[in-house]
Amino acid sequence: MIIIGELINATRKSIAQAIEKKDREYIKKIAQRQIANGADYVDLNAGTGKGQETEISDMEWLVDIVNELGDVPVCMDSSDPSVIKSCLGRIKSSDRMINSINGENSRIEKLLPVIKENNTCKVVGLTMDDAGIPNNVEKRVEITSKIASLLEGVGVKREDIFIDALVQPISVDMKNGNIFMESIIAIKTKFPGIKTTCGLSNVSFGLPNRKLLNKYFIALSISAGLDSAITDPNDEGIREAVCLAETLTGKDEYCMDYIKMCRECANKTSV
Amino acid sequence: MIIIGELINATRKSIAQAIEKKDREYIKKIAQRQIANGADYVDLNAGTGKGQETEISDMEWLVDIVNELGDVPVCMDSSDPSVIKSCLGRIKSSDRMINSINGENSRIEKLLPVIKENNTCKVVGLTMDDAGIPNNVEKRVEITSKIASLLEGVGVKREDIFIDALVQPISVDMKNGNIFMESIIAIKTKFPGIKTTCGLSNVSFGLPNRKLLNKYFIALSISAGLDSAITDPNDEGIREAVCLAETLTGKDEYCMDYIKMCRECANKTSV
Repeated sequence: MIIIGELINATRKSIAQAIEKKDREYIKKIAQRQIANGADYVDLNAGTGKGQETEISDMEWLVDIVNELGDVPVCMDSSDPSVIKSCLGRIKSSDRMINSINGENSRIEKLLPVIKENNTCKVVGLTMDDAGIPNNVEKRVEITSKIASLLEGVGVKREDIFIDALVQPISVDMKNGNIFMESIIAIKTKFPGIKTTCGLSNVSFGLPNRKLLNKYFIALSISAGLDSAITDPNDEGIREAVCLAETLTGKDEYCMDYIKMCRECANKTSV
Repeated sequence: MIIIGELINATRKSIAQAIEKKDREYIKKIAQRQIANGADYVDLNAGTGKGQETEISDMEWLVDIVNELGDVPVCMDSSDPSVIKSCLGRIKSSDRMINSINGENSRIEKLLPVIKENNTCKVVGLTMDDAGIPNNVEKRVEITSKIASLLEGVGVKREDIFIDALVQPISVDMKNGNIFMESIIAIKTKFPGIKTTCGLSNVSFGLPNRKLLNKYFIALSISAGLDSAITDPNDEGIREAVCLAETLTGKDEYCMDYIKMCRECANKTSV
């Protein structure tokens, strides 16, 4: 399971404040803790809504902090293709992810040339287009086909494409969990080698005890074939669910990761 | 989700002792608590290994206790077809389950005539035969086909057939969870209308913290299409997992069961 640590995102108040105050230590700690808890990529989002120039300089500032921690894979997350274009080269690690393209024509037009110049990057592709987020599996597969063929056309490898089939709240439509999981199964079947990811917490929007729903949902989604998630690696419930789902679906040789997790929990309890 | 409460089973020491001492109140309490916690059927197994006559009289004794509780659906669980034949008619409820037939020729020969005479019963069918438990999906589907055609041949309705695709420990082979879940998917696809069940705790045999594995495994299996489980309805983890899996796979209208569960937990915590 490839975990993209979601916490350094300027839509979160504490991060917006840290960016505003240029609090390097705060950002650094958040990055370090995510890495210590198993994040494979650190997502960086500097979008405070103060315009392109500010976002570029804030993103550069974030990238520089993460660069200080060593060869840390970064997922560069911006709604503005210019921010990605300006800041991508600044990342120290050669393992970089672009978050994200989708099926919208204007976005493709602006971002595809940037991806072409950086086609060894991983790319997150969202299954939405100019008509919005489709409420069925077929259309999500269709958008995946469009995104995959565009990305492969500019030299991105199939296995570097991460399709986010967009989890929507089950409080809005009780079928939303199924639509997502069936999309994952269909996408993995029709595009062998492609990866899938998601920002899973949306599933529980509007419901009580969201963390409980989120952890079971990531387990069910892993069983459906989910390869990656943009999530909070510090959340023990998520870590438990990832470990359990991998162990129960034959991805944990001799159940060693599970046994290790049980030991760590036992040590924690006995201290 | 159809829950078959597994606790009244003479292979458990406390039950064997209660049967030995003819402790009606103990058995009654176990039955009542399972029903209160949502068991749809109460499994009764009187096999103490003391021979057919003893098992028949003990099973009659168990049935009589459950009959006192009202119209309680019973799952009659015996390895001896004669016990089932002798005791089935004694159950007060017309909702009865036979546990179990399988693909072994000697068992079919003895049990099929009993099922023919009682073909309004639900029947559990295990995917094993004279060659043992197959270690692949294809052979489990093949045995399902044999069992389903024999049962339908003596008048059992398709929807009354509960196929148990036999969970085996992931500690023995890490693919055992996948083999089970893929069998469920294949069986549900090839025999529309048929139901699936399992005794799930076998998955965690030989590993620490078994309840944690069991609860995630039931959630993943429900997502794969599991209709029923032979399990401990008093286990809060199992109840949580069943509720969460049903809510996340679109079986809980307006998420009402989930919200109710959260409220009950909150009340419990605040008391």
